[in-house]
Amino acid sequence: MTIDRSRIEEENQIRLSWHESDLAHAVDVVDRSGVDAEAVIVEVARFSAAAPSWAVGTGGTRFGRFPGGGEPRDTFEKVDDIAMLNALTGANRTVSLHVPWDDPGLGAGAAALRRHAEELGIGFDAMNSNTFQDNPSTTDDRTVSYKFGSLANVDDGARRAAVEHNRYVIELGVELGSRALTVWLADGMNHPGQASFRGQFERVLAGLGEIYAHVPDDWEMYTEHKPYEPAFYSSVNNDWGTSLLLAQGTGDRVKCLVDLGHHLPNTNIEQVVSRLAMVGRLGGFHFNDSKYGDDDLTVGSITPFQLFLIVGELLEAGGGQMPAAAYMIDESHNLKDPLEDLIQATDALQVALAQALCVNRTDLADAQRANDPARAAEVLHRGFRTDVRPLVAEARRRNGAALEPLATFRAVGYRAAVTAARGADSVATGL
Amino acid sequence: MTIDRSRIEEENQIRLSWHESDLAHAVDVVDRSGVDAEAVIVEVARFSAAAPSWAVGTGGTRFGRFPGGGEPRDTFEKVDDIAMLNALTGANRTVSLHVPWDDPGLGAGAAALRRHAEELGIGFDAMNSNTFQDNPSTTDDRTVSYKFGSLANVDDGARRAAVEHNRYVIELGVELGSRALTVWLADGMNHPGQASFRGQFERVLAGLGEIYAHVPDDWEMYTEHKPYEPAFYSSVNNDWGTSLLLAQGTGDRVKCLVDLGHHLPNTNIEQVVSRLAMVGRLGGFHFNDSKYGDDDLTVGSITPFQLFLIVGELLEAGGGQMPAAAYMIDESHNLKDPLEDLIQATDALQVALAQALCVNRTDLADAQRANDPARAAEVLHRGFRTDVRPLVAEARRRNGAALEPLATFRAVGYRAAVTAARGADSVATGL
Amino acid sequence: MTIDRSRIEEENQIRLSWHESDLAHAVDVVDRSGVDAEAVIVEVARFSAAAPSWAVGTGGTRFGRFPGGGEPRDTFEKVDDIAMLNALTGANRTVSLHVPWDDPGLGAGAAALRRHAEELGIGFDAMNSNTFQDNPSTTDDRTVSYKFGSLANVDDGARRAAVEHNRYVIELGVELGSRALTVWLADGMNHPGQASFRGQFERVLAGLGEIYAHVPDDWEMYTEHKPYEPAFYSSVNNDWGTSLLLAQGTGDRVKCLVDLGHHLPNTNIEQVVSRLAMVGRLGGFHFNDSKYGDDDLTVGSITPFQLFLIVGELLEAGGGQMPAAAYMIDESHNLKDPLEDLIQATDALQVALAQALCVNRTDLADAQRANDPARAAEVLHRGFRTDVRPLVAEARRRNGAALEPLATFRAVGYRAAVTAARGADSVATGL
Amino acid sequence: MTIDRSRIEEENQIRLSWHESDLAHAVDVVDRSGVDAEAVIVEVARFSAAAPSWAVGTGGTRFGRFPGGGEPRDTFEKVDDIAMLNALTGANRTVSLHVPWDDPGLGAGAAALRRHAEELGIGFDAMNSNTFQDNPSTTDDRTVSYKFGSLANVDDGARRAAVEHNRYVIELGVELGSRALTVWLADGMNHPGQASFRGQFERVLAGLGEIYAHVPDDWEMYTEHKPYEPAFYSSVNNDWGTSLLLAQGTGDRVKCLVDLGHHLPNTNIEQVVSRLAMVGRLGGFHFNDSKYGDDDLTVGSITPFQLFLIVGELLEAGGGQMPAAAYMIDESHNLKDPLEDLIQATDALQVALAQALCVNRTDLADAQRANDPARAAEVLHRGFRTDVRPLVAEARRRNGAALEPLATFRAVGYRAAVTAARGADSVATGL
Repeated sequence: MTIDRSRIEEENQIRLSWHESDLAHAVDVVDRSGVDAEAVIVEVARFSAAAPSWAVGTGGTRFGRFPGGGEPRDTFEKVDDIAMLNALTGANRTVSLHVPWDDPGLGAGAAALRRHAEELGIGFDAMNSNTFQDNPSTTDDRTVSYKFGSLANVDDGARRAAVEHNRYVIELGVELGSRALTVWLADGMNHPGQASFRGQFERVLAGLGEIYAHVPDDWEMYTEHKPYEPAFYSSVNNDWGTSLLLAQGTGDRVKCLVDLGHHLPNTNIEQVVSRLAMVGRLGGFHFNDSKYGDDDLTVGSITPFQLFLIVGELLEAGGGQMPAAAYMIDESHNLKDPLEDLIQATDALQVALAQALCVNRTDLADAQRANDPARAAEVLHRGFRTDVRPLVAEARRRNGAALEPLATFRAVGYRAAVTAARGADSVATGL
Repeated sequence: MTIDRSRIEEENQIRLSWHESDLAHAVDVVDRSGVDAEAVIVEVARFSAAAPSWAVGTGGTRFGRFPGGGEPRDTFEKVDDIAMLNALTGANRTVSLHVPWDDPGLGAGAAALRRHAEELGIGFDAMNSNTFQDNPSTTDDRTVSYKFGSLANVDDGARRAAVEHNRYVIELGVELGSRALTVWLADGMNHPGQASFRGQFERVLAGLGEIYAHVPDDWEMYTEHKPYEPAFYSSVNNDWGTSLLLAQGTGDRVKCLVDLGHHLPNTNIEQVVSRLAMVGRLGGFHFNDSKYGDDDLTVGSITPFQLFLIVGELLEAGGGQMPAAAYMIDESHNLKDPLEDLIQATDALQVALAQALCVNRTDLADAQRANDPARAAEVLHRGFRTDVRPLVAEARRRNGAALEPLATFRAVGYRAAVTAARGADSVATGL
Repeated sequence: MTIDRSRIEEENQIRLSWHESDLAHAVDVVDRSGVDAEAVIVEVARFSAAAPSWAVGTGGTRFGRFPGGGEPRDTFEKVDDIAMLNALTGANRTVSLHVPWDDPGLGAGAAALRRHAEELGIGFDAMNSNTFQDNPSTTDDRTVSYKFGSLANVDDGARRAAVEHNRYVIELGVELGSRALTVWLADGMNHPGQASFRGQFERVLAGLGEIYAHVPDDWEMYTEHKPYEPAFYSSVNNDWGTSLLLAQGTGDRVKCLVDLGHHLPNTNIEQVVSRLAMVGRLGGFHFNDSKYGDDDLTVGSITPFQLFLIVGELLEAGGGQMPAAAYMIDESHNLKDPLEDLIQATDALQVALAQALCVNRTDLADAQRANDPARAAEVLHRGFRTDVRPLVAEARRRNGAALEPLATFRAVGYRAAVTAARGADSVATGL
Repeated sequence: MTIDRSRIEEENQIRLSWHESDLAHAVDVVDRSGVDAEAVIVEVARFSAAAPSWAVGTGGTRFGRFPGGGEPRDTFEKVDDIAMLNALTGANRTVSLHVPWDDPGLGAGAAALRRHAEELGIGFDAMNSNTFQDNPSTTDDRTVSYKFGSLANVDDGARRAAVEHNRYVIELGVELGSRALTVWLADGMNHPGQASFRGQFERVLAGLGEIYAHVPDDWEMYTEHKPYEPAFYSSVNNDWGTSLLLAQGTGDRVKCLVDLGHHLPNTNIEQVVSRLAMVGRLGGFHFNDSKYGDDDLTVGSITPFQLFLIVGELLEAGGGQMPAAAYMIDESHNLKDPLEDLIQATDALQVALAQALCVNRTDLADAQRANDPARAAEVLHRGFRTDVRPLVAEARRRNGAALEPLATFRAVGYRAAVTAARGADSVATGL
């Protein structure tokens, strides 16, 4: 599936004159508020969020899954899809692999996948290991199971298998050119009394230490917390406090990863971000949105103002720029076309970033120093209410991408083409 | 305190040329999406939300209260403040009284207050009764207490006093020109087993019936639900389902009032609004925002997208216009200057209304008919991301109010003037 | 798999002398509080909760599933397992089928299954239809999908298929001797704007009406609400208020079913139960427990006091007895042996029932009439803190079941026997 | 008000024969499960929880307060009430003062109060400072206000006043014989953008450091987290992770205090307890119960099973005994008689402790090592379902207290006596 960039350009041409008029006005409005509109565009253009390999297929719940047509049949096709996505957004320049769902194999397999991705301009972001499912193909010993946990399990065999799996994922990542490992564990309890909180924590900490011994010096490792699901009484790495203890206890290059859906009701997530940044342990992000739990909905589709505040804290941590971190979109595309959902997610991220950049942080700091919350709110909302779509479109245009990615995606007929090529019944691996 | 309209006009002049340029572009952008920008302005200009009499004073929590300067010393001064608010926003044309905090007395007192308000162009919205505090001044019998509830109390005296108080509030409202009574009850339980759920419900239903007998034919009566606080195990009117049963069981002109902070975590409030509108029982709104519970924060300051969706449901119910209902702002101004908080709340409401009006509902319905959630999201976000501030400012301008109400409020020096007149230590009645 | 009742009796003999001493003391303690201990035993012995056919297999989450050994390979074996369960508890006398997971087919198939169950003393409780998954085997037309809903879908074909499926389930139920249909719908939205709240509601109401037309006169039909999952922005039947509107709008024999895990955080479920009972629409119960969402954990394992209060409301509704309703256990047995989990669930239910029966309701009513919450709490906790295990064991013994069901289950070696017979890799249908 | 111990003894005599029979059976049941019943009694008898000085008055909410009769008029009378409480429970041997609500003054005042308490057998537990209200009497400079925070305030004067107030409270505590300072701060934000998360944290950390410099070497200092209220967008010390960072950043003798009502919905509090104990920073407890937020309801009245699990974690941390920590009851007695509420709270704590001690921890550890959650649940529930009331009563009896404290409190007529002495309209200071 070759991406026809001339078609994208054609679509842009249709929209160009409106874009230029809208852009001129947006620059005016933003400059007037004391913010450099050009700098906003540049920073938005610089930003990129990885797409996970599993996200180009249809997602599901325990109650069912309704696949669409043309799902990628292997990891190569997944990279193809992400390259198409990036052609439209200019802001998804890497893929994040999940092993064993996407395992090209060491050596020739990894080399071929890396070559394929490089040809399409796609790099490899953080590697994701999976010890929440039994994967017979990668486990010699069928008596080992993660049913009662992986690193937290009282069973030595399960713990060893989990460490070994992570070691393999690191090795694969090295061959692919990745620079980080994300460890999300499903370990926990469904039943009070099932295990010792402290025992589980200590076993996980020890296991992370063993894994960390395999992490190359120029890599980072991320611990990702989640309060519940699939463990429904407690999770071992349940909140940012625990995640921080695990990271601090494991090593200097271990940081915490924040998934926007992994929080108890009413959590002030932007404060969590600020805390982790403050102690120098903010390592990565999984972007999505949610109303109830880990709903994995489209980024910015439920609480866009919260997203704006979170991005604001990131800019705070980065001194006005998005700090270096492993940014990834992590949604479950149950109803929307997966690529369309990723397009909307990336757009929402860029919009939130532009809005946050449009906040005059000098004015905000002044209001804060004066204990003047009404003025602070005016400054904040001035950024949020700005129509930044022209700035975002311009950032995309400069990256050679689409002014309007979703409309362009539909216009170029990508889904129909891949459905023809891959079939209507192909099903991508993943959740 | 006379409002100097020429000062407001002066401030508008400073901003006029920018406003005109911004407005022209906004009209362009909105018209281009198939929505009539002029109609948006007209509908925003038509909208008004009452200010409650208790909201012009500083609010507090059980942990303390920090009054500011120049708080109104009586109901007349409260009306003065609301008239100033309305002069700036053009969208707070009524006051909602809370008795006995604001009780002018029947006869001459009520007549004088009504005259004062009319001179300032302020009308009287829904009356609010208070049976959640003991009010010795209005109760002859000191042995009667609402400690264990008012209408739900097993004690006959308490129930009778509560009905009687509501009757008085209605009578007062008739003299003031109000047309509705809002009944919010604190009744419930702090302790499992303290009372019978069913017994409490039936006593409340009976009490509402007695009150309704006093409600004039051209009035409406509203039942307002709240899940908890001050009752911390259960409230009698705890959710919209109960509120609906009470309204249906009491009479045709009894409707349900929705306070945005009176919901359990993660409640889909816009769906609640749709349900009540569907059964013809949506009667009123208390606007505020919250992150945790009944936080009574500035409208639109925490979840502006949810507010936009809620207003969208109201437009759905009203066939593209805000349906007739008792709209009120209900915040607790603990930190911000009360009038500034009300200005920001009203502005946020107008912004949300304008955004919701900017959604092309024909396009949305098309996407819905096609089971196309990605397109539906595009249509929805096109409205939400529009910079509607110029449209809102224009609506205010046409109402003779301020282009930028907060800046204008500060420029005209109202707070300093009332502090000089009323003193720095005046404390308004209320929570 | 024949159940050897003499082995159960043997196990009981081992425990008998302790049981008799404990029972004598429990009767003493309970009688002393003014409650008739014998009546408690009789009512506990009378109570039964259905086991769902899908619950005898291992459950899972979207993140994985870890089957154990000896899972039933077909519906006949599922009934075998439930008969074993009932032999131990004496309180699971019916099975609740889920179609198409368990579809014996009309005619000979249904007759054979019914005969098999009757031989084992098992009856058929409410039938469950499934329109939340596409089931190609039962749908002729592959173009029909429930991806965007079943009864709520804008697509006529999907709605027709859903009605038709329910009609089939009713027909099957009639042949099996069932007397009720439970309709749980996954219909809702994942994305704001995806559909009209009102449109979805009205289509569901219409669809329920069509289904109800097929419901025999001596049957009941249940609407089951759930706030979210698998729909993550909104569900059509999202709360008890909506469920009640649907039931009232459909017909007299339509009632609401309460699943203990289908509530927003902090919901007062016992109050929901009281409300539905009050309006005569409480039809059924799905028992389980949860800490976060629809966790489907062991009944009484997280919030046993809440369970006790809920059962108390049922007794209130039933005039001191459990009212007639479709009681079912609905758990997901992800970690525990499914039969062991069901044993513990049934035991927890019996314990809660006995505790609630041990509350002296006359004393409680006295305290309520006196506005004396401290005394009410004493009365309530006197029931809850009573060690009712001997009363429950006695109720089981009188039903010919086990004094200690879990220990007995392990002692008789049922799991090992069925694993030998069915194999270690058998996987039951279900979630 | 002298406590007549002979009256308590008299009441015990009435209940003695039943007690002895119940106790004998309870010892039997517990011993049979492999737990030493005598050791349970001894540990329950050893346990004590402080009563806060403000808790002997009626509590309230922002919506009102309904005082009862005979409230203590000063700190001396508060100590009298707590002595009475302790006479009944034998488990409230200390009082925890809140300054300035209860400020005897340095020197003679403190000495007199200490003498009075010692005569009644009451000691002084952790001191509580108050910087969430402006207290003109203790602040020379009226221009200083905590409206925008105390230690977190950008205003130097407010920060200095807060440090100074804490220094004073420590000094007072030294004179009274206390050994710890609890710092709960209301600092936070009501409005996004109002302050810098990081700036607020760093100012609080610096302020705690200044306070800690005044803390004597044999004292401890506690940081108490709370997610919200009175700050409704964010609190500075919002969760255990932040509390831990503050404690670790301040000094070795700074530990974290856990209030059971200070958690987001669905928080696994027992896990929080385990984490803090694991890192050696669990310093204190405020016991209460809640359904929604910081409801401050009677201990064990809503989630007694959770309380049992929390106490189980404490025993885990203490090697089978309650570890040394500052245990306090922290309720708001809005409806019940304050002393009756404290009696029920203490009883509920003792019951939970006895149940947790009745869990055979060797059996539990065995089940955990075997990944056998069903067996673990059996062991856990065996403890929880035991009727431990006779063991608790025996522990009280050995401490010279009442077998049935609430009934005894009513029988001896304490409330009537103090109402006669203090008047029906006395109002204790506090919330």
